[in-house]
Amino acid sequence: MVLTVQNVIDRLIEPVGTIQNTVDTLKFGNPNMEVRGIAVTFMATQQVIEQAIKLGVNLLITHEGLFYSHIDNPDILEGSKVVGEKKRLIEESGIAVYRFHDYVHRYQPDGIMAGLIEALEWKSYVEKNEPTSTIVNIPPVTVREIAQYVKTKLGLEFVRTAGELSQNCTRIGLLAGYRGGGTLSIPLFEKENLDLIISGEGPEWETPEFVRDAGYQGKHKALIVLGHAESEEPGMQYLAEWMKTVFPDIPVHFIPEKALFQVV
Amino acid sequence: MVLTVQNVIDRLIEPVGTIQNTVDTLKFGNPNMEVRGIAVTFMATQQVIEQAIKLGVNLLITHEGLFYSHIDNPDILEGSKVVGEKKRLIEESGIAVYRFHDYVHRYQPDGIMAGLIEALEWKSYVEKNEPTSTIVNIPPVTVREIAQYVKTKLGLEFVRTAGELSQNCTRIGLLAGYRGGGTLSIPLFEKENLDLIISGEGPEWETPEFVRDAGYQGKHKALIVLGHAESEEPGMQYLAEWMKTVFPDIPVHFIPEKALFQVV
Repeated sequence: MVLTVQNVIDRLIEPVGTIQNTVDTLKFGNPNMEVRGIAVTFMATQQVIEQAIKLGVNLLITHEGLFYSHIDNPDILEGSKVVGEKKRLIEESGIAVYRFHDYVHRYQPDGIMAGLIEALEWKSYVEKNEPTSTIVNIPPVTVREIAQYVKTKLGLEFVRTAGELSQNCTRIGLLAGYRGGGTLSIPLFEKENLDLIISGEGPEWETPEFVRDAGYQGKHKALIVLGHAESEEPGMQYLAEWMKTVFPDIPVHFIPEKALFQVV
Repeated sequence: MVLTVQNVIDRLIEPVGTIQNTVDTLKFGNPNMEVRGIAVTFMATQQVIEQAIKLGVNLLITHEGLFYSHIDNPDILEGSKVVGEKKRLIEESGIAVYRFHDYVHRYQPDGIMAGLIEALEWKSYVEKNEPTSTIVNIPPVTVREIAQYVKTKLGLEFVRTAGELSQNCTRIGLLAGYRGGGTLSIPLFEKENLDLIISGEGPEWETPEFVRDAGYQGKHKALIVLGHAESEEPGMQYLAEWMKTVFPDIPVHFIPEKALFQVV
């Protein structure tokens, strides 16, 4: 039986139903094209697209957008040579590109979070999964020890931390991606009586400054900022593993990227 | 002659005129109170407020908001013990707190940028000042050398970089604060043919991913992310120095903060 791009999309969104006003659309390619192979990635960079083409797949599933904005931003798209060259590569190769962001976050539990917890091997410590966060209870260790553990498990060169590294932690809030901002993280710290939040990314004047003030008031709180890609790439790898079982007759590859930042 | 809180505010906003819908309001205190002394800071943290009170000043000028959001966010303000304790400290001390953000960015040139350029000693290299960025032309050096120079001049433990550290740079775009996002930085890279952008903060899937793709396409671009506070604190220090000359009969102090993040 022929498997089309649209068949794959339908299967991916099936656990959720239909979301209105979503960024999860087919960015390039024909929905009726037969799928020869699938590549899954956190971010379809120039390098990832070239690698997908070399692997001979014709459908690329990307969590983040192709052109450096969450919603395709005309200020960025218009007149950019970098965008132009990337578009040309995609169009000349004929590869289909589907963005899979909003749906996977609405899996129950959140598919991206499920992959992060799997990578951290913290499944047995999960107290509860909320739509935008997961609370885990671990045996007491210091922030420094957790930072080292997370770096090892996720293969990271560095993390950024706020608060005291020597502080003991048991109650941890996990927030993947851009959920590290104050609106989600600050009430969670207080409502759940968390010692530590581990998040992907968020504005610097929000959660980290709250953590600083809380510490100065003697309320011990800490923050580990993984980086956006670092917090979500394991979720896309987890998705790829699941897709291998859903589409056993088609090659499914996960394509990782190198670290976005160096620390100097 | 008595100098009131309102007199100080009027003098600060005078170079700009009146901005509608601004976050720059008197957050605490009476505009008719006589000013005994002024403290200026990037972010009025718990520690900064305590220090200002100890210095005996009764007006604190802060660039960023008191409660971990750009526009006072009810999700954060309501029911937070950290917010409650900070408010109590301010109210019991009677210190007035004025936020000075939008106006100083509309000074010509931007007062925050002027302070950053002063701290970097790059005034003679400035090609042009735009409302949201400044272009400098420096003698050719590598990204690694610029990163080291910037760390030394601004007293930073680390910066994050994207792109090749060995790449030579002469044309640099500077964007202070949260102007590191793609909407401002990406068109600037291309329009101004920049080798490097040095910015405060911005979403990770925007400018850094553009820099990564540009590099992979052979268009050499690089990014140095200073941190939000790191990019704007020199501007508030510069403001404090200027205010000493404007209010010579009143003590004016600049209060710095420690680095928000550690790298582990």
